[in-house]
Amino acid sequence: MRTVVHSATKKVAIAPDLPTVIIGERINPTGKKLLAASLAEGDMSRVRSLAKTQIENGAHILDVNVGAAGVDEVDLLPKAVKAVQEVTDVPLCLDSPNATALKAALDVYDGKALINSVNGEEASLNRVLPLVKEYGAAVIGLTMDDAGIPKTAAERVAVAKKIVERAESLGIPREDILIDCLVLTVSADQTAAKTTLDAIAGVRAELGMNMSLGASNVSFGLPDREEVNSAFLAMAMAMGVNAPIVNPSHALKTVLISDLLLGKDEFGMTYVSYCRRMARAQQS
Amino acid sequence: MRTVVHSATKKVAIAPDLPTVIIGERINPTGKKLLAASLAEGDMSRVRSLAKTQIENGAHILDVNVGAAGVDEVDLLPKAVKAVQEVTDVPLCLDSPNATALKAALDVYDGKALINSVNGEEASLNRVLPLVKEYGAAVIGLTMDDAGIPKTAAERVAVAKKIVERAESLGIPREDILIDCLVLTVSADQTAAKTTLDAIAGVRAELGMNMSLGASNVSFGLPDREEVNSAFLAMAMAMGVNAPIVNPSHALKTVLISDLLLGKDEFGMTYVSYCRRMARAQQS
Repeated sequence: MRTVVHSATKKVAIAPDLPTVIIGERINPTGKKLLAASLAEGDMSRVRSLAKTQIENGAHILDVNVGAAGVDEVDLLPKAVKAVQEVTDVPLCLDSPNATALKAALDVYDGKALINSVNGEEASLNRVLPLVKEYGAAVIGLTMDDAGIPKTAAERVAVAKKIVERAESLGIPREDILIDCLVLTVSADQTAAKTTLDAIAGVRAELGMNMSLGASNVSFGLPDREEVNSAFLAMAMAMGVNAPIVNPSHALKTVLISDLLLGKDEFGMTYVSYCRRMARAQQS
Repeated sequence: MRTVVHSATKKVAIAPDLPTVIIGERINPTGKKLLAASLAEGDMSRVRSLAKTQIENGAHILDVNVGAAGVDEVDLLPKAVKAVQEVTDVPLCLDSPNATALKAALDVYDGKALINSVNGEEASLNRVLPLVKEYGAAVIGLTMDDAGIPKTAAERVAVAKKIVERAESLGIPREDILIDCLVLTVSADQTAAKTTLDAIAGVRAELGMNMSLGASNVSFGLPDREEVNSAFLAMAMAMGVNAPIVNPSHALKTVLISDLLLGKDEFGMTYVSYCRRMARAQQS
């Protein structure tokens, strides 16, 4: 199972036997007042700088989300995509619940995009999958449906299966879908993380899919969130997640260590050279 | 599956649905010149202080190993066990490849001990399992046999099965066995950690056993070993290890975070109170 996305000049492949692909989550105004304010003014300078910083910190794909109160995503998402394309050559992940905004962004994106996201709701399947087909894009499928986020791992695997089957019925190959098993906050529900890990293992075993995961929310409300996120990311990668959506400056080292432990870094060369680079940077 | 060991006054239970049990690894002269020297002189003061420190840092069981060049383990292991029993009330893990030394230590140990270890070699099965039976002890079963440490996960699961079956044929209940799937250094073999993780998952799925793991060697020769060990421990716990043999001062936080993520810490109370305690200790 090999998922490929690309920009005009750069291709990124996601597969169980390849090193993990980091999707940078930072271009997203949720909880970022300055970014939200600058987006509202149509100012793309922060978007550009977030793009550059994330690439420097190890992102392979950048998520682009402009969703905020009062924002016209149909106007703004393509503008943000253009701005990011001006400063980086990595493939982009176009992130919106608004299918019209996604279409506008797909129109200006130069390459094979990743769309974030479709889910098992009938309305979502009917709106988003035709875009995936029309533009030859790849898509992240969230394991939730009209009844919400299922409480059990088996139900989430069933939603993943439904998304895959619906996509295939439209002629979208299953390798163009990344499944995201969704994780809620463990401080609110102690079974939240375990259910997600079980769902990830189930999707890998039963469907063989590549998987994304927006993993940072798991630690909401807890002390030392980064350490909680690191442990959860390591576990999720061991279960099969191979394209997590994360803050690369926090997650890169954990991703490299986990790839090494999962047999995806021959002789530890990538991890060891990363550590040497960091050590040199600290000295200089 | 519930493994219980105890001292004269304290019981420790190991089970998949219970918080993880930490076996402190520090009473072991390998790589510790001062401890080796003091043991050679029959001086138990370092053993006592290592015992106390590990309990303070969160160990639930203490491994006691006196093996070093020129040491008479038959004489020294029972002395070390007595010394540790003088300063702590936690159950002990009697650690020697020498069955005569194990027997001498079992003679002075007051409680139901954990023996470290038996393995699938015929000589080991024949020497150690009768002691386990005679003293009503529990035992760690290493997944290696006369052919060495198997290269594949499936073969390690098969060795675990052999140990369990042999033990049961002697009347030792399977809940008195902890399986250790063994991990080698990932810098020497990039598949080492992954093979162990797959073996752990296999033992949990096929045999339902509780599992130990001496996990620190995985990072030998790598930079930032503690971070590598933490990620590996989180992964191993996600796969089913619930009684790791570790340095508690390094591993406690990862164990608490992993238990929280695996649904074994209701409302995160244990983890949050640990973080508060650490924050207070830093302030004072």
